[in-house]
Amino acid sequence: MTNRIGQHTILLPNRPRIVGSAAIVGKKEGKGPLHDDFDQIIDDDLFGEETWEKAESRFQYTAADLAIRKAGLTHEQIDAAMGGDLLDQIMAASLAVRELHTPFIGLYGACSTMAESLCLASMLVDGGYLHHAVCTASSHFCTAERQYRFPLEYGSQRPPTAQWTVTGAGSAVVSADEKLPAICRSTHVTLGRIVDMAIKDANNMGAAMAPAAADTLHRHLTDTGRTPADYDLIITGDLGRVGHDLLLTLMQERGMPLDPSRYSDCGLEIFSPDQDTHAGGSGCGCSAVTLCGHIFRRFQAGELQRVLFMATGALLSPTSNQQGDTIPGIAHAIALEADS
Amino acid sequence: MTNRIGQHTILLPNRPRIVGSAAIVGKKEGKGPLHDDFDQIIDDDLFGEETWEKAESRFQYTAADLAIRKAGLTHEQIDAAMGGDLLDQIMAASLAVRELHTPFIGLYGACSTMAESLCLASMLVDGGYLHHAVCTASSHFCTAERQYRFPLEYGSQRPPTAQWTVTGAGSAVVSADEKLPAICRSTHVTLGRIVDMAIKDANNMGAAMAPAAADTLHRHLTDTGRTPADYDLIITGDLGRVGHDLLLTLMQERGMPLDPSRYSDCGLEIFSPDQDTHAGGSGCGCSAVTLCGHIFRRFQAGELQRVLFMATGALLSPTSNQQGDTIPGIAHAIALEADS
Repeated sequence: MTNRIGQHTILLPNRPRIVGSAAIVGKKEGKGPLHDDFDQIIDDDLFGEETWEKAESRFQYTAADLAIRKAGLTHEQIDAAMGGDLLDQIMAASLAVRELHTPFIGLYGACSTMAESLCLASMLVDGGYLHHAVCTASSHFCTAERQYRFPLEYGSQRPPTAQWTVTGAGSAVVSADEKLPAICRSTHVTLGRIVDMAIKDANNMGAAMAPAAADTLHRHLTDTGRTPADYDLIITGDLGRVGHDLLLTLMQERGMPLDPSRYSDCGLEIFSPDQDTHAGGSGCGCSAVTLCGHIFRRFQAGELQRVLFMATGALLSPTSNQQGDTIPGIAHAIALEADS
Repeated sequence: MTNRIGQHTILLPNRPRIVGSAAIVGKKEGKGPLHDDFDQIIDDDLFGEETWEKAESRFQYTAADLAIRKAGLTHEQIDAAMGGDLLDQIMAASLAVRELHTPFIGLYGACSTMAESLCLASMLVDGGYLHHAVCTASSHFCTAERQYRFPLEYGSQRPPTAQWTVTGAGSAVVSADEKLPAICRSTHVTLGRIVDMAIKDANNMGAAMAPAAADTLHRHLTDTGRTPADYDLIITGDLGRVGHDLLLTLMQERGMPLDPSRYSDCGLEIFSPDQDTHAGGSGCGCSAVTLCGHIFRRFQAGELQRVLFMATGALLSPTSNQQGDTIPGIAHAIALEADS
């Protein structure tokens, strides 16, 4: 295996380029602290469609289409679209790519999907198997609540550990084309393993996913010989307040303490505490729009030189939960660097 | 893009090796014409578990574990497990990989999953990003019926176009290790596009998927400059009788007629007509066990030199169906050659 460093980390010798991105969010996200970083804020939670599921698909299509256009490319130039969402049978992604007419690699990584797709696309572009690939992930508060929890009409109460599913889609174009200006470049991939600490509470995803994040981060740092201080920012996907604090503790225990000023979580970035989301944001869309909106803009502004993006996923299903199974967690990490 | 030939096909210059495989099936499949080609036939549809979903996961774990062991490898040597199933949130795959403890790339390609995973693994192994990868896909008659159609207890009638979801899992290990004996090698990948011919009948998947198979096959043959006669066998995933015959017609119309003696469908291979499955087998497991059991054994026996494996998927969900949406189809193709 020619591109491995350490035991589990994959080096991308050609440093594939992120050449376009877009983040489209809903009304609540548009009122949050990152509102200036989004390409579009859609006040209508149906986005002009008949159902929330079709609206979520419209978010994905719109984000992918805009990311491709912002890269100066056409749909025909895209060798593969890859991505997914939280809906059964990744309905949002399938219906979105049906309109793009590109080859499609459907993924399911729960809320880790944006990192999973960027890891795969970066390897395939690095190796010359794809020239341009578009990575997209989405979630929608209304589709997630009714699929995973209760119909919205019930007005269920939420415990303090619960997170708020982000409505939105983020999309990024990964390319081998040296002529296109790069927002940043991907340099290393550490694929996630499934870690299950026997948590069963579907209202406490942060605690279920934090051990997987610690596992991936530990392996990444060990393999690369880097320390947390080598990154301007380490950002997890949607651990929220509970999982964020737990990861700080877990990394402290592993002898790799994180500097809280350089570690953040997309679930904490996207909403302000006065937006009453309890433990923060969640959903595939949470890390997708924070990366494709906020983080990429900070790269472009020269505020970030090196970032580790590590989206986390809780691989439960309503069925596995009803059958008393615990929640398996996963976290994929990709290292991003400014183009220099 | 260094490894592209034609417009859409990807050449694998290092010809990654399939070094291990396993096919584990249920009782009905074990009574079919391929019964001698399976590694294990499990008479208990619960496979010792409490639920059918957990049983399906047990099929996946057992197939992956056996394929890895047959390759002479250990779980620790596997750089990534990739695959999926038809269950919401790919529950069978997630729970199976939780036991494997390998990095995990979760996929959703409906019944095209076995081909999707082999395409991805072959590219990643070819490029030196993974050394050994295990690809697995499964389905289970009982989990699919209750998720997609009706509870089994209803004893619903099935129309003649309906197919029978295969209970089973197939797994294959893709490797770059030149010292391991190869069952066959992968040489070309053609990723599928979503094709939707506006079919809404979830009991007629073959018709929904055949146009996607025609699209991929047409692009593959055009890109490679090959004709159907260049393959000893072109085998689709689970088009069944209706889709099989439709693909013959569609390829005739495109001026690339298939020789019926060299074109088959896994859904027709796996059951005999007297097993009363109507239009044949279906499900991710259908193409997975036919490939990993039957086809790979024919390679090993020297009966096949070059095969195009093209698993097809119907990217519907119960929700999209209830919302009146049509069924998007997809087909991924991978060319396999004897090791010579």
